[in-house]
Amino acid sequence: MAVASSLNPEGPQPGHNALEALTALVAGDLETCNRLIVERMDSEVELIPQLAGYIVAGGGKRLRPVLTLASARLCGYRGERHAALAACVEFIHTATLLHDDVVDESDLRRGRASANAVFGNKPSVLVGDFLFSRAFQLMVEDGSLDVLRILSNASAVIAEGEVLQLATTNDTATTEDAYLRVIRAKTAELFAAACRIGAVVADRPAADEEALTGYGLNLGIAFQLVDDVLDYSALQARLGKTVGDDFREGKITLPVVLAFERADEEERRFWRRTMEETDQRDGDLEHAIALMQRHGALTETVERARGYAARAREALAPLSHGPFGGALLEVLDFVVDREF
Amino acid sequence: MAVASSLNPEGPQPGHNALEALTALVAGDLETCNRLIVERMDSEVELIPQLAGYIVAGGGKRLRPVLTLASARLCGYRGERHAALAACVEFIHTATLLHDDVVDESDLRRGRASANAVFGNKPSVLVGDFLFSRAFQLMVEDGSLDVLRILSNASAVIAEGEVLQLATTNDTATTEDAYLRVIRAKTAELFAAACRIGAVVADRPAADEEALTGYGLNLGIAFQLVDDVLDYSALQARLGKTVGDDFREGKITLPVVLAFERADEEERRFWRRTMEETDQRDGDLEHAIALMQRHGALTETVERARGYAARAREALAPLSHGPFGGALLEVLDFVVDREF
Repeated sequence: MAVASSLNPEGPQPGHNALEALTALVAGDLETCNRLIVERMDSEVELIPQLAGYIVAGGGKRLRPVLTLASARLCGYRGERHAALAACVEFIHTATLLHDDVVDESDLRRGRASANAVFGNKPSVLVGDFLFSRAFQLMVEDGSLDVLRILSNASAVIAEGEVLQLATTNDTATTEDAYLRVIRAKTAELFAAACRIGAVVADRPAADEEALTGYGLNLGIAFQLVDDVLDYSALQARLGKTVGDDFREGKITLPVVLAFERADEEERRFWRRTMEETDQRDGDLEHAIALMQRHGALTETVERARGYAARAREALAPLSHGPFGGALLEVLDFVVDREF
Repeated sequence: MAVASSLNPEGPQPGHNALEALTALVAGDLETCNRLIVERMDSEVELIPQLAGYIVAGGGKRLRPVLTLASARLCGYRGERHAALAACVEFIHTATLLHDDVVDESDLRRGRASANAVFGNKPSVLVGDFLFSRAFQLMVEDGSLDVLRILSNASAVIAEGEVLQLATTNDTATTEDAYLRVIRAKTAELFAAACRIGAVVADRPAADEEALTGYGLNLGIAFQLVDDVLDYSALQARLGKTVGDDFREGKITLPVVLAFERADEEERRFWRRTMEETDQRDGDLEHAIALMQRHGALTETVERARGYAARAREALAPLSHGPFGGALLEVLDFVVDREF
């Protein structure tokens, strides 16, 4: 992503990006997956499908289930199991979103009111638990202990990453390593698992599982790095997303880590006041963005993302033939260069 | 439980009840289970074992894992798997406690500050997620898809019950049926699952699974009914537990349902003001207890519990020989007559 162009409303047009191209390749499978999602989030307790439907229908890109579907097809899988497993991945993701929004006290998600803002924190916590349980019920129906192992491990690591993130919040002494440990756990692990189960369901050898795991893990890190840059992007505001959420919450992301490392004493006082004491005033967000730009913190974070995308490309190399391999590689550029 | 005697400080002495007798029968297994719990709640993310340790060490009766261990031994099981599965049951229970306390905004749990009061809501939500994931990791290591099915189903039903409970909160029109639907889901389902997996791990026929499921389900309903009575018990206060939590939260339990059904118009106005509008004043809790006593709502709730205990006894009949069967039957009386 060129940071300058993120301030430019003329970005790539929706309908013409690599993620949509990949999604189109698995359109039929995704339809099955979406149908399963709607069927299986149902419950006699009406509030559950209401709330789950609100967030599931909330305009997500379905990136993680698409990765599962595409990975399975890349591995030559011809059955139907992958659609249910992709739904499991989306349920786990949705459950973590619901709990994240409660933990972060977020009012907006994907440009509209978050589920906790509409329905309250209590049902958000409980419906998250429900979706998480549903994911495991679906995996049990599928019957693969390997998939159950991969996704229960991923779920535990995600929770660890979220707790770790709490420990770094408001701490300007957070290092790049500590930050990377957080995002690897809270975000990249599920990307890795989503891709890996594509190889598992296709019954491919360990080397292929590793290739897809490496692809997913590095893609996930790149994805989160860019997400963290976008939280300081003016274009985001125009797309109806809140900007500066991380700033307001005192969440220490790589742009802050880099800007703080390069800051003079006065700037450090600014970061400590705004991020540690969360004593924030009008104009502070704009000043934070200006400091990040002065020190190249946003462009450098995007460069780091590009580095992880390169690792993902390398990991996938043995499998990157054919339309699915090509589309998965192109998604790497999309993730780094996206502006939304 | 004699409700009159619940106001009497001379209750059964600790160390001489049927639950402790049952626990003593599985003491070695429970030690293994407790060791596993401590080992497996560990994480490099220090806050996780700190918080999990706080709640796990918080003086719980370990009733649910003891049921798993005793059910397995009742079924003649001689292996070691049941200890890990009992730990899974306790992890799921602990995760729901953590989320419950966040949802209920409770400050006390088992007579001391709740985890959310000490550590905050955010880590309580996330450590709950971690323990839930750990439970599934342990089940995957065990390798039984039957156990995974039973406990993932139970987890989904528990979440449904908790959401359903939100819908009945502050609603004095809640019926006894609606209340029973809530407690069956949020409490009894895990008791049923805890007992059932004892038969599964011992590889016993379906009839034995059903017997233990019926025992656990009805025991769980009786347990929750008595819990709900105890929230209006003066002895509880002396044991360091908060009394009137349900009342303050406007949680509609059977004593309220029965008292409301039998109330005159003035009493109904009282219930609507205190439970629906949660406009509560000094002396309201005492007045609520007096109304319950006037209408026999507490004694009748205990009688209902006794009825479910009888069903549990009947369900277990085919298996109730030997020391484990006898001890499980005696626990039924303990659950109904306990004063803590």
